[in-house]
Amino acid sequence: MTYCVGMKLDKGLVLMSDTRTNSGVDNISVFRKMFTWQVPGDRIITVMTAGNLATTQAVISQLEERTKEPENRDNALLKSPTMFQVATEVGNLMRGIISERQDANGAKGRGRFTASIIVAGQIQGMEPRLFMVYPEGNFIEASLDTPFFQIGETKYGRPIIIRGYDRHMSLEDGVKLLMVSFDSTLKANLSVGLPLDLQVIARDTFEAGHQHRVTHEDPYFQAISSSWGDALKNAFHSLPDYAFLKRED
Amino acid sequence: MTYCVGMKLDKGLVLMSDTRTNSGVDNISVFRKMFTWQVPGDRIITVMTAGNLATTQAVISQLEERTKEPENRDNALLKSPTMFQVATEVGNLMRGIISERQDANGAKGRGRFTASIIVAGQIQGMEPRLFMVYPEGNFIEASLDTPFFQIGETKYGRPIIIRGYDRHMSLEDGVKLLMVSFDSTLKANLSVGLPLDLQVIARDTFEAGHQHRVTHEDPYFQAISSSWGDALKNAFHSLPDYAFLKRED
Repeated sequence: MTYCVGMKLDKGLVLMSDTRTNSGVDNISVFRKMFTWQVPGDRIITVMTAGNLATTQAVISQLEERTKEPENRDNALLKSPTMFQVATEVGNLMRGIISERQDANGAKGRGRFTASIIVAGQIQGMEPRLFMVYPEGNFIEASLDTPFFQIGETKYGRPIIIRGYDRHMSLEDGVKLLMVSFDSTLKANLSVGLPLDLQVIARDTFEAGHQHRVTHEDPYFQAISSSWGDALKNAFHSLPDYAFLKRED
Repeated sequence: MTYCVGMKLDKGLVLMSDTRTNSGVDNISVFRKMFTWQVPGDRIITVMTAGNLATTQAVISQLEERTKEPENRDNALLKSPTMFQVATEVGNLMRGIISERQDANGAKGRGRFTASIIVAGQIQGMEPRLFMVYPEGNFIEASLDTPFFQIGETKYGRPIIIRGYDRHMSLEDGVKLLMVSFDSTLKANLSVGLPLDLQVIARDTFEAGHQHRVTHEDPYFQAISSSWGDALKNAFHSLPDYAFLKRED
């Protein structure tokens, strides 16, 4: 499995991904799932991937190649006039790779080889944008109503984001929120694993801001992980107590 | 979907289930998923069901019939000498109903009609016990290491139980913990819905203790639901803050 989150705040974008891939619980590996292309001062584009690793690696490799031969391509990431076109490009590429593999495997391939991708970034003169791209190649964009996207093992870490999110929060608090969300997920699902990749894209900087790899030894993540249990218990005890007598029916 | 939790505390058992069944999001209904049989002073047995509704209703109906004709049955719930035998009975019954339906539908039936059941209770002279019964008819028992079982949509509500559980907590706090877990699940998955059924089985009472149906108008559940958001935010802000400068790499 995988867990990646992209979150849109007023001050920019906060992105985090795990690095575990598995084929059964007895075959796990570490693979980076976050990839960035940038032209400092002009644009920064980051994608995070979940799903079939052969598919997502093929998507990334082909995106890389296109960035290296811009003169031969009209649709290279680094030349796309908008983030919308970047998401379209990623979607078409992924849909093509998935359907090629499925066709080659006939009935056996149906529903396999799929993947999902979060596309985030900002291009000079435009707003920061955040998309979720489906295996079919279509995509949706984050809005004020749904300001974050998760892919992979999304459930364990979702309640705290729903409750903790505030579009006005600082980028640092955004990082803290995702650390807690990842901690809850790591505690519940072995197929999501450390290290984590973190990237912060501050609005109107057009370059990768803070980047960090969170390992087992990371003191901040350790502090979050150990103090969140106590903080949750305190939160729990701060709630009104239940009483049997008054409520018997 | 469904969400049911059975939790074992030193002071007894706390059980909670939702009542939503759905066949697509455009076809939802309310069905009770918690069923109790008791002989006050001798035993109390409660089961909670998840999965195919036709299967679980058949299991419950057949268990009901067996309780009504004890003289013709050696294996009636109300005569079983141990909770282990109750779980065995429930498992065999469910496995039989599922495999009958699957056989009748051939290849189309494979993997369908399945269900899971939580069996909880206490019989005079023995400890309170809690089992999770699988569609195959086998089952596992809760222990000190894994003192609670969830069936249905288990993921959203799991992190708070993992962090909040304490075997020494009062039965009232157990109820509060499950209220929070259900609130997180209800907020995230439409296929889990109010009203909720709550039952508390205090140790060595051998009867249904506190029972309650939690509706939309329930003031306690409303208070938990609205104050948990604030409590979580406070917990979040009590954690150490993240700082970019020191951690840049």
